[in-house]
Amino acid sequence: MIKGTFNKAYMGSRTAEEAAGCVLAGCPLDATSSFRGGTRFAPESIRRASWTLETYSPYLKMDLDDIAFCDVGDIELRQGDLLYSLGVIKGAVDEIVREGRKFLILGGEHLITYPILKALKTRIKEVQIVHFDAHCDLRDEYEGQKLSHATVMKRVKELDGSDIFQIGIRSGTRQEFEELLLIESPEALAARLDRSAPVYLTFDMDVFDPSLVPGVTTPEPDGLTFKEVMDYFSIFQGMNLVGADIVELSPDYDTTFVSSVCASKVAREILMLLNPY
Amino acid sequence: MIKGTFNKAYMGSRTAEEAAGCVLAGCPLDATSSFRGGTRFAPESIRRASWTLETYSPYLKMDLDDIAFCDVGDIELRQGDLLYSLGVIKGAVDEIVREGRKFLILGGEHLITYPILKALKTRIKEVQIVHFDAHCDLRDEYEGQKLSHATVMKRVKELDGSDIFQIGIRSGTRQEFEELLLIESPEALAARLDRSAPVYLTFDMDVFDPSLVPGVTTPEPDGLTFKEVMDYFSIFQGMNLVGADIVELSPDYDTTFVSSVCASKVAREILMLLNPY
Amino acid sequence: MIKGTFNKAYMGSRTAEEAAGCVLAGCPLDATSSFRGGTRFAPESIRRASWTLETYSPYLKMDLDDIAFCDVGDIELRQGDLLYSLGVIKGAVDEIVREGRKFLILGGEHLITYPILKALKTRIKEVQIVHFDAHCDLRDEYEGQKLSHATVMKRVKELDGSDIFQIGIRSGTRQEFEELLLIESPEALAARLDRSAPVYLTFDMDVFDPSLVPGVTTPEPDGLTFKEVMDYFSIFQGMNLVGADIVELSPDYDTTFVSSVCASKVAREILMLLNPY
Amino acid sequence: MIKGTFNKAYMGSRTAEEAAGCVLAGCPLDATSSFRGGTRFAPESIRRASWTLETYSPYLKMDLDDIAFCDVGDIELRQGDLLYSLGVIKGAVDEIVREGRKFLILGGEHLITYPILKALKTRIKEVQIVHFDAHCDLRDEYEGQKLSHATVMKRVKELDGSDIFQIGIRSGTRQEFEELLLIESPEALAARLDRSAPVYLTFDMDVFDPSLVPGVTTPEPDGLTFKEVMDYFSIFQGMNLVGADIVELSPDYDTTFVSSVCASKVAREILMLLNPY
Amino acid sequence: MIKGTFNKAYMGSRTAEEAAGCVLAGCPLDATSSFRGGTRFAPESIRRASWTLETYSPYLKMDLDDIAFCDVGDIELRQGDLLYSLGVIKGAVDEIVREGRKFLILGGEHLITYPILKALKTRIKEVQIVHFDAHCDLRDEYEGQKLSHATVMKRVKELDGSDIFQIGIRSGTRQEFEELLLIESPEALAARLDRSAPVYLTFDMDVFDPSLVPGVTTPEPDGLTFKEVMDYFSIFQGMNLVGADIVELSPDYDTTFVSSVCASKVAREILMLLNPY
Amino acid sequence: MIKGTFNKAYMGSRTAEEAAGCVLAGCPLDATSSFRGGTRFAPESIRRASWTLETYSPYLKMDLDDIAFCDVGDIELRQGDLLYSLGVIKGAVDEIVREGRKFLILGGEHLITYPILKALKTRIKEVQIVHFDAHCDLRDEYEGQKLSHATVMKRVKELDGSDIFQIGIRSGTRQEFEELLLIESPEALAARLDRSAPVYLTFDMDVFDPSLVPGVTTPEPDGLTFKEVMDYFSIFQGMNLVGADIVELSPDYDTTFVSSVCASKVAREILMLLNPY
Repeated sequence: MIKGTFNKAYMGSRTAEEAAGCVLAGCPLDATSSFRGGTRFAPESIRRASWTLETYSPYLKMDLDDIAFCDVGDIELRQGDLLYSLGVIKGAVDEIVREGRKFLILGGEHLITYPILKALKTRIKEVQIVHFDAHCDLRDEYEGQKLSHATVMKRVKELDGSDIFQIGIRSGTRQEFEELLLIESPEALAARLDRSAPVYLTFDMDVFDPSLVPGVTTPEPDGLTFKEVMDYFSIFQGMNLVGADIVELSPDYDTTFVSSVCASKVAREILMLLNPY
Repeated sequence: MIKGTFNKAYMGSRTAEEAAGCVLAGCPLDATSSFRGGTRFAPESIRRASWTLETYSPYLKMDLDDIAFCDVGDIELRQGDLLYSLGVIKGAVDEIVREGRKFLILGGEHLITYPILKALKTRIKEVQIVHFDAHCDLRDEYEGQKLSHATVMKRVKELDGSDIFQIGIRSGTRQEFEELLLIESPEALAARLDRSAPVYLTFDMDVFDPSLVPGVTTPEPDGLTFKEVMDYFSIFQGMNLVGADIVELSPDYDTTFVSSVCASKVAREILMLLNPY
Repeated sequence: MIKGTFNKAYMGSRTAEEAAGCVLAGCPLDATSSFRGGTRFAPESIRRASWTLETYSPYLKMDLDDIAFCDVGDIELRQGDLLYSLGVIKGAVDEIVREGRKFLILGGEHLITYPILKALKTRIKEVQIVHFDAHCDLRDEYEGQKLSHATVMKRVKELDGSDIFQIGIRSGTRQEFEELLLIESPEALAARLDRSAPVYLTFDMDVFDPSLVPGVTTPEPDGLTFKEVMDYFSIFQGMNLVGADIVELSPDYDTTFVSSVCASKVAREILMLLNPY
Repeated sequence: MIKGTFNKAYMGSRTAEEAAGCVLAGCPLDATSSFRGGTRFAPESIRRASWTLETYSPYLKMDLDDIAFCDVGDIELRQGDLLYSLGVIKGAVDEIVREGRKFLILGGEHLITYPILKALKTRIKEVQIVHFDAHCDLRDEYEGQKLSHATVMKRVKELDGSDIFQIGIRSGTRQEFEELLLIESPEALAARLDRSAPVYLTFDMDVFDPSLVPGVTTPEPDGLTFKEVMDYFSIFQGMNLVGADIVELSPDYDTTFVSSVCASKVAREILMLLNPY
Repeated sequence: MIKGTFNKAYMGSRTAEEAAGCVLAGCPLDATSSFRGGTRFAPESIRRASWTLETYSPYLKMDLDDIAFCDVGDIELRQGDLLYSLGVIKGAVDEIVREGRKFLILGGEHLITYPILKALKTRIKEVQIVHFDAHCDLRDEYEGQKLSHATVMKRVKELDGSDIFQIGIRSGTRQEFEELLLIESPEALAARLDRSAPVYLTFDMDVFDPSLVPGVTTPEPDGLTFKEVMDYFSIFQGMNLVGADIVELSPDYDTTFVSSVCASKVAREILMLLNPY
Repeated sequence: MIKGTFNKAYMGSRTAEEAAGCVLAGCPLDATSSFRGGTRFAPESIRRASWTLETYSPYLKMDLDDIAFCDVGDIELRQGDLLYSLGVIKGAVDEIVREGRKFLILGGEHLITYPILKALKTRIKEVQIVHFDAHCDLRDEYEGQKLSHATVMKRVKELDGSDIFQIGIRSGTRQEFEELLLIESPEALAARLDRSAPVYLTFDMDVFDPSLVPGVTTPEPDGLTFKEVMDYFSIFQGMNLVGADIVELSPDYDTTFVSSVCASKVAREILMLLNPY
């Protein structure tokens, strides 16, 4: 039969056999947004956007073609059943971590970070968490819910009380800002991180200025430029990044496709940081 | 202090005191959509669109200025807590019905029809249900859920097993089509309805052709024109319409505002049918 | 490794082994458009839209789950090299036809119909061609080119001079209209077709009214409704449809996704017509 | 110097010298809209859209290339000075009519019809007016103004009290509907028109269904299809059409360009009706 | 009767009784735009966007919940009658100022600043005016008009000839640039302002870079970032800001809602600057 | 006959007779784009956007009204015939250069720079080329083609091997980056340019950050701001700029018109740099 092609996976993805070390997976959870939703469409949009990029990164001077990773597709959730879906996410990451793999998860909404870190912390206790976001996400409850995109970092903190380094935050309650550990420059981040300990990166796309990335559920003015994010990322070179997520992209509000391209370029850099040659 | 104005309510709405007979309320439930969401923004959009319409209907030869109804605003739900929200909806309609009022509820997603009818049927047992929709909504389960926009009419049927007259349906499983009671013309509807018994109307905006109403969660080609809907509505003149809902409008996909204008014009006609002079 | 999923192919597609009889392939040729382009994005968009549809067709009372076909992905073209690409298309269809398979090709621009029919006619000489389109496409030359979306049916006619039944045409030069064999009703089509001879169907999406399908390269008012197209399709039931194409969808101008949904629904019906149980 | 080209004018326009009989002019008045505006951009958009059409009309079996008309560009108005602008419009039409020319004016908002008809009636007293619109436009005052898009046909009626044949109307006050002379079919129009007397045609683009033409200032569901308009136009063949306007297109709300294409196709047909061979 | 809710007013607005000191009002004047219009829709859009923000400002370390202000709705204008509307605006501000209240007015187009300042200056003579804008707005006439969005600051200057501090200006005639008093940094502003004298702030949304705020009538590249604006605003802390306006937002060109969010965040900061605890 | 106006040409354009020194021409080549296309619509969109700008530049303190140039319209290409079109472009520039004129060409895709420079170099051998772009464009082949938007600067280099100063580049293969002569600041550019030798400027609109200019065929995050571009342009004051092009604007992806405004403002500055008083 004739051989056609599908550009289904993120560019440069290899087969599971070829890519033992690193897993890329979509996680289209889209349940607790308070303003507009649509994050369920993000994994596919990030994959599509990857095909407009080059595999070579002038920032890291690495080429994705030299990196072994496998895009396994999307974790299958039940849209209307939040607790079931959170359990499935935890189970999937449990399996990845048990096999000793690193991973990048493409959300979906930010709440996915909670089951991901629950799974990760069963194996890697002392992980340092770096959190890019416009919002604190440190509420204890939101609209009567304990589990929400607006409470996720509070839940994560409760896992063991360790510090979270938060970057780009510019929206929250007075109480959240009091609790916040705000990092205001790459130098400050470098000074705070223990270079010998593992790092987890949770990247909410609304950390970018909404001029560049309007396609998020809650756009907040006064965000980071792409260059500023790359400057923070340069700190991670040579460190042990063990996992990461990219969340809150909402492609239906990305009228020019630029938000998806940005998310995809962030993913390219993270895949390289997870996989130093 | 200076007196400014807000066009907050549906045009022609009166105060609660002036409008004893009929309640208009928003119900922004937006929880179980399988494709795209956003129905939570519909009540406000329908109200805004009303201000581009005239109060006079050339179809019914009635004027909304002669109709006493009160737009009370939106029922307050918890976005992440489906069962709580369904309970609140039932409670609100219980109160409306207990006071002997008629009502039009602006969704939100189609699942709201289930708690509405549960409340209505405690007071008015023998209500005939007329269902405008592109989809059967007669699945027993959808994505593992019993309560979903795709199962709502199955749940409604189970309340007492009475017939539902379904209009405009063009999508479903083979099994749903076998169960369907499809009405294919205004004449057929007139022949089937008991003109002396009360009628409830549930109106899914995707019954319209998506050329006219693209702003829905699941657009399905081959729908009704506005004129065809008006022809069906003419059957209800002189009958006892006791309640109605308009559901599944998703304004973020209504790139030209025409979908909201259509929903708002349907609302105008229903308010008149609920309130014959 | 964890098992994720990709919704890469048209819904219901089977493996090549399971689906011996019928091939679905994308053919993203996008070279000769005179006004706006973008047809290269159509195959992927049609596949994505398929996942919002049901597998059951109330028109044909068939279910795609009972149909064996295989979506093989996209034929690989060279965007800047027209003659090379036309050769590749002809080669791919040659192979499909040689193996005795039926096929549906998703364009891409209308010019693909020329190499497809060249390949098909080497095996099946006496094929009746039914052409849905807004435009005659019967020019001998366009902008100095013999091979163009605007000349394609002229080129096809020259293959052996047999008649082409043209439906929905409403734009062309005076000379094209003189040459046209316009079919103005399903009854007229039924009267002209030889029910025992094979049929090829070329379906330009701009045959639809642009209210329903604005996402085409050259929208032309006064087109067909979805129902009218279904009425024409009913004629093909019980006939020997041997191949088909759907062309000229341009997703970037489909601001509401409805054009892609229409194309995908047309594809579902054609797959059933190609594969009677 | 090298010769480049501008597609500045409506397709097929000739020089003033070659086209003695018929003037096409833009008239971008955009002053009194009550909901959204933007009609000032319509003349340019209609001209641009013309280049996507063919010069041949299968409805009238005429070719624009055989028609002598001259697109003179836009009448220069002062955006903030309504009375001045209305005077300029009247002056321009006075000049056209004095020279014995026919004309098609591309609005701009509907209010332009008032100065146009004031000018026309000084020369041609007994002109029959045919009015395509969604709205009656028969208010005596609107938002405290006598001169408004919503009062224009009332003002026109006052010029001499003669009848106006109104087509497609579906929105207005009860009083306007009582005053309306609604024509409900081409046959009814044919019966009412005096075929030997001159005709003026004022065409508000919102007469079309907003599924086809969303790009208007006040979209109103339940409008005419393109085919229905062509059926009305066929009545004018062989009659003495002396002038016409096309108004209320608002290109910024025409997200797919289809509204502009429709307006441009209507213009093509009117140019042919004004200029029988 | 059941209690629903409307999110009609700007978040945190109190009743007139509770909020003696500060008035928020909409002023949807939309009459003299030379390019695209639509500013009449701004007040409602700014209010809606406020509900996506937090009440706490990390810039000023204040919380809107601690601020007493009352959103009274929109001043009622007559869209087609400029002089009448300007009179109404002046009358409304006269009343606010007479009662000793501070105010924030949400335009509408920039021309509203003229009647506002006419009213303000009758009570507070020596007010320092700070003007954020992309355009000088210092023409003496524009398109033959003395009263226009393009002449407004010239008219304001004529009220008493006092200086206007202009920030962000990057478009104008040579003559306007000669007349301009351009402030190029927060430090320069601090140096020029008399901290003991009252300040009025007129904020044209096009001062922002159009990457962040495309939803204005005349976007001009090379504007301010959100952070730069906040840096200027910090100068006003501890000063006597007596009134302000935010003008020229045009929501129909705000395809991602980010422009409205920016305007709403600017409004939040201004409300806090008007109301130091 | 009445005198209307067309805003057909770039603002301030004079007749050929009045503007002996400088030609502005459109060149809508749109053939080899690998992702999305649509650059053929750029010249017209840039011209339209010019009418929203002022003629005075505060950057150069010059006024376009003092500059003599002639916008001659678009060079006529054949959309489907690449080699023919490249020949026509070369011929047009040959003629301009032979007459001793300077020029600004508005693309169209970037490939046009190749025939332009072929023509220019026949007259002016030692031209220094400054290249603004997000992409290296230094591939030797792309998708099997030697002539492509992705290979254009490689082809240009081959003309005589002279250096190209490349600014804003942030995407390419490892090999392209090795070949690249990246200029990282205006100072670096000033240091490298020979102020006595002629300069050619090729300006790919994607050099801008996609937050400001999303309307390009391949948006790439991390681009230049408008101010940064103006800083580079200031270097050219007093130098002998002999020709320039602006390429890769794709208006159909410019949802807010800001990309076209930016391109038009860049054009204004270049026209002034080409024509020092």
